[in-house]
Amino acid sequence: MLEMGKAREPNFLVLFFFGLILGFGISSEGSQIRHYKWEVEYMFWAPDCNENIVMGINGQFPGPTIRANAGDTVVVELTNKLHTEGVVIHWHGILQRGTPWADGTASISQCAINPGETFFYNFTVDNPGTFFYHGHLGMQRSAGLYGSLIVDPPQGKKEPFHYDGEINLLLSDWWHQSIHKQEVGLSSKPIRWIGEPQTILLNGRGQFDCSIAAKYDSNLEPCKLKGSEPCAPYIFHVSPKKTYRIRIASTTALAALNFAIGNHQLLVVEADGNYVQPFYTSDIDIYSGESYSVLITTDQNPSENYWVSVGTRARHPNTPPGLTLLNYLPNSVSKLPTSPPPETPAWDDFDRSKNFTYRITAAMGSPKPPVKFNRRIFLLNTQNVINGYVKWAINDVSLALPPTPYLGAMKYNLLHAFDQNPPPEVFPEDYDIDTPPTNEKTRIGNGVYQFKIGEVVDVILQNANMMKENLSETHPWHLHGHDFWVLGYGDGKFSAEEESSLNLKNPPLRNTVVIFPYGWTAIRFVADNPGVWAFHCHIEPHLHMGMGVVFAEGVDKVGRIPTKALACGVTAKSLINNPKNP
Amino acid sequence: MLEMGKAREPNFLVLFFFGLILGFGISSEGSQIRHYKWEVEYMFWAPDCNENIVMGINGQFPGPTIRANAGDTVVVELTNKLHTEGVVIHWHGILQRGTPWADGTASISQCAINPGETFFYNFTVDNPGTFFYHGHLGMQRSAGLYGSLIVDPPQGKKEPFHYDGEINLLLSDWWHQSIHKQEVGLSSKPIRWIGEPQTILLNGRGQFDCSIAAKYDSNLEPCKLKGSEPCAPYIFHVSPKKTYRIRIASTTALAALNFAIGNHQLLVVEADGNYVQPFYTSDIDIYSGESYSVLITTDQNPSENYWVSVGTRARHPNTPPGLTLLNYLPNSVSKLPTSPPPETPAWDDFDRSKNFTYRITAAMGSPKPPVKFNRRIFLLNTQNVINGYVKWAINDVSLALPPTPYLGAMKYNLLHAFDQNPPPEVFPEDYDIDTPPTNEKTRIGNGVYQFKIGEVVDVILQNANMMKENLSETHPWHLHGHDFWVLGYGDGKFSAEEESSLNLKNPPLRNTVVIFPYGWTAIRFVADNPGVWAFHCHIEPHLHMGMGVVFAEGVDKVGRIPTKALACGVTAKSLINNPKNP
Ligand SMILES: [Cu+2]
Ligand SMILES: [Cu+2]
Repeated sequence: MLEMGKAREPNFLVLFFFGLILGFGISSEGSQIRHYKWEVEYMFWAPDCNENIVMGINGQFPGPTIRANAGDTVVVELTNKLHTEGVVIHWHGILQRGTPWADGTASISQCAINPGETFFYNFTVDNPGTFFYHGHLGMQRSAGLYGSLIVDPPQGKKEPFHYDGEINLLLSDWWHQSIHKQEVGLSSKPIRWIGEPQTILLNGRGQFDCSIAAKYDSNLEPCKLKGSEPCAPYIFHVSPKKTYRIRIASTTALAALNFAIGNHQLLVVEADGNYVQPFYTSDIDIYSGESYSVLITTDQNPSENYWVSVGTRARHPNTPPGLTLLNYLPNSVSKLPTSPPPETPAWDDFDRSKNFTYRITAAMGSPKPPVKFNRRIFLLNTQNVINGYVKWAINDVSLALPPTPYLGAMKYNLLHAFDQNPPPEVFPEDYDIDTPPTNEKTRIGNGVYQFKIGEVVDVILQNANMMKENLSETHPWHLHGHDFWVLGYGDGKFSAEEESSLNLKNPPLRNTVVIFPYGWTAIRFVADNPGVWAFHCHIEPHLHMGMGVVFAEGVDKVGRIPTKALACGVTAKSLINNPKNP
Repeated sequence: MLEMGKAREPNFLVLFFFGLILGFGISSEGSQIRHYKWEVEYMFWAPDCNENIVMGINGQFPGPTIRANAGDTVVVELTNKLHTEGVVIHWHGILQRGTPWADGTASISQCAINPGETFFYNFTVDNPGTFFYHGHLGMQRSAGLYGSLIVDPPQGKKEPFHYDGEINLLLSDWWHQSIHKQEVGLSSKPIRWIGEPQTILLNGRGQFDCSIAAKYDSNLEPCKLKGSEPCAPYIFHVSPKKTYRIRIASTTALAALNFAIGNHQLLVVEADGNYVQPFYTSDIDIYSGESYSVLITTDQNPSENYWVSVGTRARHPNTPPGLTLLNYLPNSVSKLPTSPPPETPAWDDFDRSKNFTYRITAAMGSPKPPVKFNRRIFLLNTQNVINGYVKWAINDVSLALPPTPYLGAMKYNLLHAFDQNPPPEVFPEDYDIDTPPTNEKTRIGNGVYQFKIGEVVDVILQNANMMKENLSETHPWHLHGHDFWVLGYGDGKFSAEEESSLNLKNPPLRNTVVIFPYGWTAIRFVADNPGVWAFHCHIEPHLHMGMGVVFAEGVDKVGRIPTKALACGVTAKSLINNPKNP
């Protein structure tokens, strides 16, 4: 794998020119090179019928969909057309084996791309699945910098389930306030919380001041939409008596969502690019950073259309559900369903949420976790106040990313780029997770958890009470560079007695997993991917407030890093060495 | 001078540590080191009583005032606390002899400072005068990134005029729309013009939805201000029977202003840091980028207060004047003047504007221009449309700055960093300045006008009709790294006959000069400051739309450039050279 990493660039060039000459990019092994040329810029857009600016790619919002086969090489030539802001793009769920510099995390894997500059992301997509990409600098994801990334099985291979058609759905949430104002508010004393989103977007489309389901509720204002507006719903067109795969990914900044289709059961088959043991459900919960595939069969009354509803959960709701139609062709889309959209389960019915999440297990034949761990890290999630600023902290450290990306700093041994003391791996045994934290020792930090290559690592994520009494939130934790096995969940504090309850038989592989209020979640992964990897709450403002940690493994085995990924901070200072500039 | 440039940093370090040990920074020659530690960040602020975000420094808006004596060294340790945006600060009017890398122009003198990083600006202030500083990346100046920079005569020396007290006034204009939206609008097809400012700010203070002079006009809403609000007017407190120096600088994004004080004549003594032949006037015009000092004598009825009014000119006005009070102590500030604020002259009374501007001549004893020029460049100012985008162009080239700063690119001979063909030095003789341009040849460009060191350069700025019939605007052109002599102005097209009308006897030295509608302006300067220097319209959206050119001279004589100023673009790529990264 390391040799692969080193060989990638020249190899790619050969393939690329070969492709150019032939006019396409099929390599000798049948895998392809998928070349994308993108420009990121702000543009006027009305995602929810209210004009605003969004961060678009090539004039599109959401950005263009990447579609590739497992084994393909994806090359994204990304030009930053913003005027003052840097930019990076993270390929969420892609493992980046051999290309840790292409993970697209500012301050971790690379220097942000400066205005006017171009960066070449170049990576292989190893596994089929439903993925997405998004900005990973400041709160640029909230500004609309995201899109879908779909990986099909290798050419000539099939999915392990049949379907006749596919619908791709990327979910997000939208605020009318600019991210710059949101960022100032979160960093203010006292904090100004961003509040709940104004609108839920389905493929970048929502309706803020009107409802397409107003006919069932006289309190709602009906939308006057022709269907061609950027905020007109993205209709699911289907034919009767068929099976459809719906790919659902959530890149929300905050909202935990629930997805349901009137009258149709969902057969869950994939989660975060891994096949799961199929199960039927009336609706799915989907947290930020997660993706699912569900199969539906269009076996209902073919003369009707049906509601697709995406409501909010896990937080006191203040956002109407995002809606669209499952349109049985050849019915007109103007034919509204006979009954109102399916109701979103109560936001605080956490038992129901756990019931759904706990049901997810790996499909038969999936890779099993190593039976033993080499190292187990406990990560206590607390909300804290540091010098009057509200922060999130892990084991009393609130992450503030350094200006020099870790990957280059570690490769070149630049000891002043970040705190060389690793953060704590445990929290006090007597910590009371049911009361607000006292946090005398809470501090800002940027230390790194370093693993030996190949080490089997367990992480026990432990939730706790927030600053306010009787409050604990749900957090979806996302790991870069790896899939992990979810060994188990539980309420209260994790203890030795829970050991036997961990699932080593068929735990699902994921890249994102939630911790429920006052609960714990146990995961296991193998630290076998040389690089530096973020592990963080995928709620954008929570990460912005410090809710993350940094993992590193085998950085000495990392091959060439593109110069542009190193051209900032102390890496630039240390590597720029020219006799003409004495 | 070049030796000085090279010697500066070690010299500075010696002085600095000497200063630290002694607790202050007086050098052996009596000059001091003025050390400032600044953090730039967005913050909530209500410059005109409406809350918004502004770009502040150390929690202040406008930023802290720098005050130094001529000959002092100013060190600004600037940390970028923005989350996604780069930042630079330009020291407007400071010549930067020997320190061209400290001029603070992104893409020209340095790489923008990345989020989280710190850059040391380190320069001497050669001349006494009224200066200011401001952002010079994207439209960050419009976002509020500016402050005053006042240079007193060298220690022990006096100004050539007497005054008892001083009032420092920095003028700006303010929009409620974010600069990010403004930038998108200007770059949109069709263009969305930013419109006139909502408010004129005096030292960062204005009143948007009310007037402090409402008592004279029943159409106005009176302000309910206690005086402690950030938007309460900055009162000029004076004692009767004294002489005051009012320093007035304008860093407006767009507005041309007129400054007047009820009942008080103004004696103009300084312009852009150069003494002028004193003259009395009832009011002054001040364009963006300019500064003036005026003396007033508080010889009016001491039981009254008087209005200070700053109105808009040169564009169809849509912004109420900025107001404050000249408060004769010990009168209460709540005692409003008996008559309304002085009326701003008609916006389109260009004869009056010219009359004021043409009156400015150099004080006796000022340096005289060389009698002959070595090179004369004609710069035609036109508005154009390129691929549907509205742009400003100079000799048919609309400036789009490259990602790699010129200074480093030229020093290291990186030929691909920008267009090596210099832009045209003339425009067609038969160009009709009275009709809208046809602009078939207009293009985007980033070439450089290169001068031999010591060359005497004349620039004839030629105004013309815009895209719309019968429209030509006023543009204040600002030159970095030099003062220039203003040899003359005229209406229509410059021709050989005007040669004899040029003033070589007592032309004023300025760093900013206007071209009037359909007119020309002739300037002369000596290209004796090794570096790369912007010359551009100081109207922020005009520069953003390409209204500028780049001058370079003697870059081979430029000494050490700080690494951080080089760590971007092809300079970084070319200079990063590490055997560990094969
Ligand atoms: Cu992610
Ligand atoms: Cu300037």
